[in-house]
Amino acid sequence: MSDVDYCVVGAGFAGLTAALRLKQAGRSVALLEARDRIGGRTFTVTRDDGSWIDRGGAWIGPGQDRIYAMMDEFGVPEYKQHNDGDAMMIVDGKKHRYGGTIPWSMSPWAVTNLGIGLMSIEKMCKTIPREAPWEAKRAAEWDRISLGEWIENNTMSKAAREMLDMAMAGVYTSAGSETSLLWALTQMGSGGGPTFVISGKGGAQDARPVGGMGAVYRSIATELGDALHLSRPVRQITQDGDGVTVAADGLTVRAQRAIVAIPLAIASSIVYEPMLPVDRALLHQRMPGGAVIKISIIYDEPFWRADGLCGQSAAPGSPATLTIDACTNTADPGIMCVITEGPAARRLTRMDEADRKAAVIGELLDRFGAKANAPLEFHEQNWTTERYSGGGMISHAPTGVLTEFGYTLREPCGRVHWAGTESSAVMCGWIDGAIRSGERAAAEVMTADTAAAATTRV
Amino acid sequence: MSDVDYCVVGAGFAGLTAALRLKQAGRSVALLEARDRIGGRTFTVTRDDGSWIDRGGAWIGPGQDRIYAMMDEFGVPEYKQHNDGDAMMIVDGKKHRYGGTIPWSMSPWAVTNLGIGLMSIEKMCKTIPREAPWEAKRAAEWDRISLGEWIENNTMSKAAREMLDMAMAGVYTSAGSETSLLWALTQMGSGGGPTFVISGKGGAQDARPVGGMGAVYRSIATELGDALHLSRPVRQITQDGDGVTVAADGLTVRAQRAIVAIPLAIASSIVYEPMLPVDRALLHQRMPGGAVIKISIIYDEPFWRADGLCGQSAAPGSPATLTIDACTNTADPGIMCVITEGPAARRLTRMDEADRKAAVIGELLDRFGAKANAPLEFHEQNWTTERYSGGGMISHAPTGVLTEFGYTLREPCGRVHWAGTESSAVMCGWIDGAIRSGERAAAEVMTADTAAAATTRV
Repeated sequence: MSDVDYCVVGAGFAGLTAALRLKQAGRSVALLEARDRIGGRTFTVTRDDGSWIDRGGAWIGPGQDRIYAMMDEFGVPEYKQHNDGDAMMIVDGKKHRYGGTIPWSMSPWAVTNLGIGLMSIEKMCKTIPREAPWEAKRAAEWDRISLGEWIENNTMSKAAREMLDMAMAGVYTSAGSETSLLWALTQMGSGGGPTFVISGKGGAQDARPVGGMGAVYRSIATELGDALHLSRPVRQITQDGDGVTVAADGLTVRAQRAIVAIPLAIASSIVYEPMLPVDRALLHQRMPGGAVIKISIIYDEPFWRADGLCGQSAAPGSPATLTIDACTNTADPGIMCVITEGPAARRLTRMDEADRKAAVIGELLDRFGAKANAPLEFHEQNWTTERYSGGGMISHAPTGVLTEFGYTLREPCGRVHWAGTESSAVMCGWIDGAIRSGERAAAEVMTADTAAAATTRV
Repeated sequence: MSDVDYCVVGAGFAGLTAALRLKQAGRSVALLEARDRIGGRTFTVTRDDGSWIDRGGAWIGPGQDRIYAMMDEFGVPEYKQHNDGDAMMIVDGKKHRYGGTIPWSMSPWAVTNLGIGLMSIEKMCKTIPREAPWEAKRAAEWDRISLGEWIENNTMSKAAREMLDMAMAGVYTSAGSETSLLWALTQMGSGGGPTFVISGKGGAQDARPVGGMGAVYRSIATELGDALHLSRPVRQITQDGDGVTVAADGLTVRAQRAIVAIPLAIASSIVYEPMLPVDRALLHQRMPGGAVIKISIIYDEPFWRADGLCGQSAAPGSPATLTIDACTNTADPGIMCVITEGPAARRLTRMDEADRKAAVIGELLDRFGAKANAPLEFHEQNWTTERYSGGGMISHAPTGVLTEFGYTLREPCGRVHWAGTESSAVMCGWIDGAIRSGERAAAEVMTADTAAAATTRV
């Protein structure tokens, strides 16, 4: 039994940040992590040559002030995502090379459809109050239909539909039919809108930390020292009038309050005693994770750059839905990242390893030429089979959930507080949002106890 | 460590039936139940005078052959639901008394809207292949929108919309916006369509077992004897090449195969080792339970009958959304049942007990007169706070889930098999469906082992 001021559950960016801020404020903390590693839905592997692979969340962009602040704090510089050269879009087997964010060589009809679709989403996003999306004027209407239904009804070109589906619904790593339109608008809006979501330069894929996300999270862990406990899956959280008892495998922690910073989809695997309020308990059943496989392929060099390609490509529904240049700041070795999401990722999961590798390399060959056939290493990260992520990348809300249960995303349940990127009103779904949520939760528990102490003195 | 042929998890009707059929086939069984009672989402309390209250699932109807067969097996007779007299519909504070299933005193416009809505749903239901709803011709389209959206778009009268929402969406005990249209059509279609769902005589509320559901499930338990283990919440199921190890609090069972017969919404609270296939694991995050409160109020006598009322009333959105005569076959004492579902039930849950009682009795007073004010007893059953139900009455599929994950509802995962009413293609969501699923799973495990034995002999 360990006795601390606060117990934090989950050592992803949200939990790490909460624990860090509490410790920096002079509080004692225990941070319990189920895995034998930290980072949560980020996961950086450093190679012998000093290069690194971000097997999970990797990119940052303008407006994500809290991840930048954290990087400043630990002296981690950024470097810009490589964007020089043409991107590529594959529609119906036909390759379109293009500069900028729109593949102009698609039919004018498709491009117009796509542009109008994106503009409409941008406009709808602007009407969503970040802190209370359920108060948007058209909240009820937008929460009754899926993003997939909206795309279906608002694009008349098949190519535009497929692109929008991949770019907008793909984010939720589930079929477009699974995600509420209101949730999608809320999530995208929390970052500024769909243009931010899909953009490299100036968008959500603008830059990366030198050393990868691990350079940041390992610095936090170093500062936390022995407050961090690995391989301690939490099984039960019991609250009483004086505090909480958090029971993990092999370790029980007594604290004034707990901060639970794990994905919503698996928050219900903890037994809460007494039971959580109904709406929060039901929320845990209602924000599933998706399916995403991120594959990092190491080559001698980023050979696509010499061909005038930036490395970005998109092929809706294929085994390599998205590719992006994932080199380090030295561009040595060449690292190509393949991200496959939703139904395509689930199909890929059901293949055996050799077939999956062949399918993915085959796609790269087709897009980037013969050199793609000679990878040095092939690193697969299937977030779908990460027990303690419950899928990836983020949890989404199906229709009806945000308007009915959204208010519980941040509301503490007695002495149990909630963090996690999905609970952030700003940059919800990004690492920056996770950090914001950790800082909010840390402030919340300290304020609650200061208020309680003041009351006691009176 | 207990060693048996098969281990069944969950002693609701699905698990009880599976264990019973296995035992009757000469197999050894352990049935582990988390609660200190059996029955799952049915729960019969017998009063000192011999009358009983069904605090959960209660009604049966034509076509539900497997519950009737079970009743025959144990000599439990049925009695018909009391339907004599007028029903009542309250719309915008105005009471409409009516005979039959349609409140003709509502405006002709509303009644026409309602009739057309019901007919359309009936027609759509007929196009759904029971065993594979995802293969319906319009499956993709119907799975992209919520039932709430369909009702919104297909009823132009507000009164009709509210009635349809209550009658069709209420079944899922969540907001209409939460349930996929395809799931609703599948569930209703599995029983024959919406008319069956909402009807008393000849429908899903046609009759009840004498003695309540407990008369049936207690008979099964008696036959199971010491194969039944109460207060044994299962925490982990480990499979290997030879069998499964099921670890519950205080009891570990080794068996050839396991049948998990608990609601989908809480099936993910068990740790599966190795992890379940991705699509099944993701299904567990995607079929939430709803909110339902069932209140049974005891009076001297069923006084409403003397006033020419059958006891059925409906008031969309009110604290007593539905009422129904719940007397035993002797009609002594008078038992009025109040069922409140979805958002209204969640609002009711947040009230304190006295206010909730006052609100409900107030509604009955208004509908049935002063005698409603003198209840002898007031029994509340809030399924929402039943930890081991994960909400009630049934799990629903949000949009996109059935087409993407539906195929996993019945597919065994190695040595782990699935039962539960939601896995039944016939009478899905009813007690009859639970029994069917238990019989199917029992046959499944025995067939699998017979096949394996045959292979070994060769």
